Amino acid sequence: MRRYSSGLRQAGKTIAFVPTMGFLHQGHLSLMEKGKALSDHVVVSIFVNPTQFGPNEDLAAYPKDEDRDLEMTRKTGVDAVFLPDARQMYPDGFQTVVSLKALPKHLCGLSRPGHFDGVATVVTKLLGIVRPHTAIFGEKDFQQLAIIRQMVKDLEMGIDIVGAPIVREADGLAISSRNMYLTTDQRQSARCLYQALTTSRQLVKDGETNADAIIRAAAARISAYPETTIDYIAICDPQTLDNVPVVNGLVRMALAVKVGKSRLIDNMMLTQ
Amino acid sequence: MRRYSSGLRQAGKTIAFVPTMGFLHQGHLSLMEKGKALSDHVVVSIFVNPTQFGPNEDLAAYPKDEDRDLEMTRKTGVDAVFLPDARQMYPDGFQTVVSLKALPKHLCGLSRPGHFDGVATVVTKLLGIVRPHTAIFGEKDFQQLAIIRQMVKDLEMGIDIVGAPIVREADGLAISSRNMYLTTDQRQSARCLYQALTTSRQLVKDGETNADAIIRAAAARISAYPETTIDYIAICDPQTLDNVPVVNGLVRMALAVKVGKSRLIDNMMLTQ
Repeated sequence: MRRYSSGLRQAGKTIAFVPTMGFLHQGHLSLMEKGKALSDHVVVSIFVNPTQFGPNEDLAAYPKDEDRDLEMTRKTGVDAVFLPDARQMYPDGFQTVVSLKALPKHLCGLSRPGHFDGVATVVTKLLGIVRPHTAIFGEKDFQQLAIIRQMVKDLEMGIDIVGAPIVREADGLAISSRNMYLTTDQRQSARCLYQALTTSRQLVKDGETNADAIIRAAAARISAYPETTIDYIAICDPQTLDNVPVVNGLVRMALAVKVGKSRLIDNMMLTQ
Repeated sequence: MRRYSSGLRQAGKTIAFVPTMGFLHQGHLSLMEKGKALSDHVVVSIFVNPTQFGPNEDLAAYPKDEDRDLEMTRKTGVDAVFLPDARQMYPDGFQTVVSLKALPKHLCGLSRPGHFDGVATVVTKLLGIVRPHTAIFGEKDFQQLAIIRQMVKDLEMGIDIVGAPIVREADGLAISSRNMYLTTDQRQSARCLYQALTTSRQLVKDGETNADAIIRAAAARISAYPETTIDYIAICDPQTLDNVPVVNGLVRMALAVKVGKSRLIDNMMLTQ
């Protein structure tokens, strides 16, 4: 992988990189399309990273379909796919961790301890191997994007981190590989995330500035659907992820809701 | 710095990097000479990194002489000196830490908690900015060298880490900026480190394999000198730094001794 990348760099070509855990969907494809638009070559990695799964999160059950993934990358015009295995990524003696002090102490980081250490470390490794000019991450994992931006800046990696907009189903549900676990009824309930976000955005547009009031309205919207359990609803600063009590300036709403057993996340800017 | 380095890389030139905390001495100059021998260009950084000083270690008292340092690098034929300040290296919002799980739990890491997190993080940053082909570190800071080797491998930085032999005074004392704090009497006592190492090496040559026996003999050699306090004496595996109870195969002795108030370190292979 590194030889391939060095060759391109020496030939003056630019490389966009899209790291994934496979089981690709329209969201991933939009990242690849963005990569094609930004760079001469697009590299995709497929690696289900064990270190970002918690002890209660089922790594073994993570869906896989390598043939289908490769076919999709081929059709999308990706130039190279990097598929390391866990033994190559984490050989005996491996012991280095990249961690951030503040950004993981918000949103999903609170209910997934250690998750973002795993993400930061594996992304550092992948960026080191692939050595792209640009790396593209979906805004759906908004906290992940904020963490990677900060990490790349802090560690002086010299790589442009680009966020790509969330891709949604017709009814607004953000596309995710977790959606396939939803029953027909749960799929109906899953619309609550997008509806909570658009309801909140409308409230802000109508002049509401009290974050608690907006969050209460969003919570009511979600709770109106069966089989939903709110993990968090937050209105936060998009850089620091700190909670914002009064909406003025740029703020983002982020939420995590369990629908049945599937934990879904979504987020949206509340202000323009 | 990055532009300078990119320019050299695009012109097909190789870069050797010698990170320092300044107040240069013969030890540093030997690293620069090694860099010249290995690469087209040599870059030296001078940065007294605050994050590797503990709360009881006096950052403000760390010796500085920038004019003298620059003169020495000029005479040695260094191509560029990078002198960032702490505000550039650690701006507001900086929060990323690179840490290793096992290697810092030995030797100096035990009496300097957090020190090697600071070292690993700043070296990652400097390697990201300077982007050398090779980076050169002195074997005097043997644990630091082992940690950086492991980190560069773990995080896939794609940089050759080269160790350079310890430079010693005529009587064997390893050259260090801390030596200047020694009184005339303490300077005599400071010979104990090298003598403990050579005594131990001779014992191994004579057939002794019991690490405890060797360490006891080294301790006796050190304690024979006034104003000495042993911090640690260890016989360890040079890769893992784990203590080795029976000497067979490659082992290194590492020691830290306070002479007066100055904490001196040294190390040596006991086997060939």
